[in-house]
Amino acid sequence: MPRNALFADLYQLTMLRAYFELGMASPSAFSLFVRKLPSRRNFLIACGLADLLTGIESLRFDDDQLGYLRSLGDFPDSFLEWLRGFRFTGDIYALPEGTPFFANEPILEVVAPIAQAQLIEALVLNQIGLQTVLASKAARIVTAARGRPIVDFGARRAQGIDAATMGARAFYIGGVTATSNLAAGKAYGIPVSGTMAHSFIEACASEAEAFDSFVRIFPETTLLVDTYDTLAGVAKVVALSHSLGPKFKVRAIRLDSGDLDQLARGARQILDEAGLTNVQIIASGGLDEDQIDRLTTRNAPIDIFGVGTNMAVSSDAPALDIAYKLVEYAGVGRMKLSAGKATLPGRKQIFRNFHRQAAVYDVVGRHGENLSGLPLLSPVMLSGRRVGDGGGDLDLMRSYAKEAIEALPLEHRSLAPPVTPYEIRISLKLAEYQRSVVGRLLRTSIDRELK
Amino acid sequence: MPRNALFADLYQLTMLRAYFELGMASPSAFSLFVRKLPSRRNFLIACGLADLLTGIESLRFDDDQLGYLRSLGDFPDSFLEWLRGFRFTGDIYALPEGTPFFANEPILEVVAPIAQAQLIEALVLNQIGLQTVLASKAARIVTAARGRPIVDFGARRAQGIDAATMGARAFYIGGVTATSNLAAGKAYGIPVSGTMAHSFIEACASEAEAFDSFVRIFPETTLLVDTYDTLAGVAKVVALSHSLGPKFKVRAIRLDSGDLDQLARGARQILDEAGLTNVQIIASGGLDEDQIDRLTTRNAPIDIFGVGTNMAVSSDAPALDIAYKLVEYAGVGRMKLSAGKATLPGRKQIFRNFHRQAAVYDVVGRHGENLSGLPLLSPVMLSGRRVGDGGGDLDLMRSYAKEAIEALPLEHRSLAPPVTPYEIRISLKLAEYQRSVVGRLLRTSIDRELK
Repeated sequence: MPRNALFADLYQLTMLRAYFELGMASPSAFSLFVRKLPSRRNFLIACGLADLLTGIESLRFDDDQLGYLRSLGDFPDSFLEWLRGFRFTGDIYALPEGTPFFANEPILEVVAPIAQAQLIEALVLNQIGLQTVLASKAARIVTAARGRPIVDFGARRAQGIDAATMGARAFYIGGVTATSNLAAGKAYGIPVSGTMAHSFIEACASEAEAFDSFVRIFPETTLLVDTYDTLAGVAKVVALSHSLGPKFKVRAIRLDSGDLDQLARGARQILDEAGLTNVQIIASGGLDEDQIDRLTTRNAPIDIFGVGTNMAVSSDAPALDIAYKLVEYAGVGRMKLSAGKATLPGRKQIFRNFHRQAAVYDVVGRHGENLSGLPLLSPVMLSGRRVGDGGGDLDLMRSYAKEAIEALPLEHRSLAPPVTPYEIRISLKLAEYQRSVVGRLLRTSIDRELK
Repeated sequence: MPRNALFADLYQLTMLRAYFELGMASPSAFSLFVRKLPSRRNFLIACGLADLLTGIESLRFDDDQLGYLRSLGDFPDSFLEWLRGFRFTGDIYALPEGTPFFANEPILEVVAPIAQAQLIEALVLNQIGLQTVLASKAARIVTAARGRPIVDFGARRAQGIDAATMGARAFYIGGVTATSNLAAGKAYGIPVSGTMAHSFIEACASEAEAFDSFVRIFPETTLLVDTYDTLAGVAKVVALSHSLGPKFKVRAIRLDSGDLDQLARGARQILDEAGLTNVQIIASGGLDEDQIDRLTTRNAPIDIFGVGTNMAVSSDAPALDIAYKLVEYAGVGRMKLSAGKATLPGRKQIFRNFHRQAAVYDVVGRHGENLSGLPLLSPVMLSGRRVGDGGGDLDLMRSYAKEAIEALPLEHRSLAPPVTPYEIRISLKLAEYQRSVVGRLLRTSIDRELK
């Protein structure tokens, strides 16, 4: 699968040819933001930056790709030769990965010659969109678990291999503890977890034999007990503990179907009565934050949750209304006036204001303004080179995300929608600037031409 | 991104070690199926097979991957050396890509030594799941368009790069006409489409200048008219046609916001009054099958629809309840009895029965049964090698899908849920076999052990 310069929409390349032939090479600024939060998201978690920067750094057109573009008939050789030398040499300012943010706040701004900023459009939207969608869903699931670990079981149900693998990264930053996905474990150093599926049990002559065989190989394993009859399965774990005596070191059992609350209570009782109080209970099977919230609210004796499908695709909000828009060209603010899609012109900064360590409101101001509050956007790439280590330490991002979420007002970090939306103010200078740009557009771009 | 042997859940590898050490090398059969159709899907379209087979053929463990597995501490060298020689040598039977299917019908069956069939589990689920989800959504959107072409604009909102690129393939098989995604165009030979975005318009001194400049480079382009004021934008297209005279060859305008029905009527009137009856109208902006259905029902003068987000992630049903389950091992039928998750044991075949060219019911029977109707599963890989050309011709798949959908009863191929579900019968032999397997499990695996 090509993951480079050709991951772009055709219109990006036709516009590039136009910029090239019209000599439009002035600096531009593009802003990435979400127009509206999904109805079940009180905030989003910025994620995916490090992978995006890797993609931008390595963005090159090779002969094969140029040959494909030539075959389309829309691109003359002069333009294709120019593309051959293409490198991204611009600056990128971004929210650190793990930052909670809200609608209409810039997640990232690209400052570069317009063709460069335009060429990375689909990549920026896709890569930041993907991990932001998934980290934001994970944060809700982690909230619902009230401190119990969440393990990502979603690779098989994710929308593709990179969604599964980058997803595991996003989930980890969002607070998930481990993943079942080995590709993600290897690529990102995320802890991996997993023991057995129903197929192993079924392939053995009996469930008891399956448990016995598996435990000889993996003494500290988790045994899946719901293949035939869950509580009978738990009884077999107890029987195994009797037959193995002190060699019994099984750490956990897993429930994957049925009424998890009731079965966990039944299983806990059987285990406790047999003295197996250290054997933990892992629950999985179609879980989402609402079900986990109900289970933890009722204090179901579940120690760890395995979450697959609903987290893997962010089932209730699988995409964001995320946009990457030109906000400045040749030093002049730019914006759309389309119905419902008007944008904030110019480069920006977000200032998060706190009261006693709790975030109380954000101000979106112009780039270069010096307002009260913590500025959230910082340079992550300058002249095409990453700043610092590129933010590669997932554990730092994960603890930063946790702290930053905990700093949000309680009603915004709970699962239910807040009574009062988190307040986003526009600075006086930005509001003034927007008015001046609208005024100019109405005067020059519309009125003049209609006369 | 690793897209090979390590795209697997850790439990697949721990089970593989157990199979290896326990000498469990008998033939097995696994069946891939969907337990339940999403509420807004009357059928699903099988898709993703060719890419899956490519992944299975090339599945190898290299030193780097084996080193990672060694680092986990769970895998001894003897097992890792065995993995180094791993090749898939089994057989695969599958529905041809583009086949409509229903709940509990096998999409694909893998017949192979159990370790081999188990190792491809996550890959099979992920790859067939992804393209099946997306082709099935595309089929609804194509239905709603009532013959008007659909162009895929979804790359930027898809869940990752392979979702976008394989998605474009699935959309094409599902009936979509073209994609904006160059990577997909190159990888699969899908027609590509696209001209300009708002950023180009905004970067120019005025909308009129933007149109003029762009048309000089791309005379037969589509002009995006909604950046500032849609109908004023259309008027500028008319003005351009006057100034260019016979050199005016613009093919279409695009509307991307606002009330598309009303704006399309307004735009059509302006164009027609100027004699530009050949200039088509393309509409885009958050469309799904319901909106397109409303627009085509009202005969809005829209010639082509561009569809992004809602198709890109199959927003109303972003994942399937898809399962890959052991159904036979060492010649013996296997199944789960878990609550709500019981499976059909043994290898199977689907027979689709027609009345006057219309599909009326399917029978799921045992593999080897010879029942009335068209058998749908056929061998696509034997002894690890693809059968035939691997089904690489997308246009054939696309026309096959169209015909196969058209053969479904009208109420199943409309957007609304059918009054009567499509009938899936279980053959007498399969029902009998299932009873015998359940009986054996209840006798041996449960009763015996509990005594």
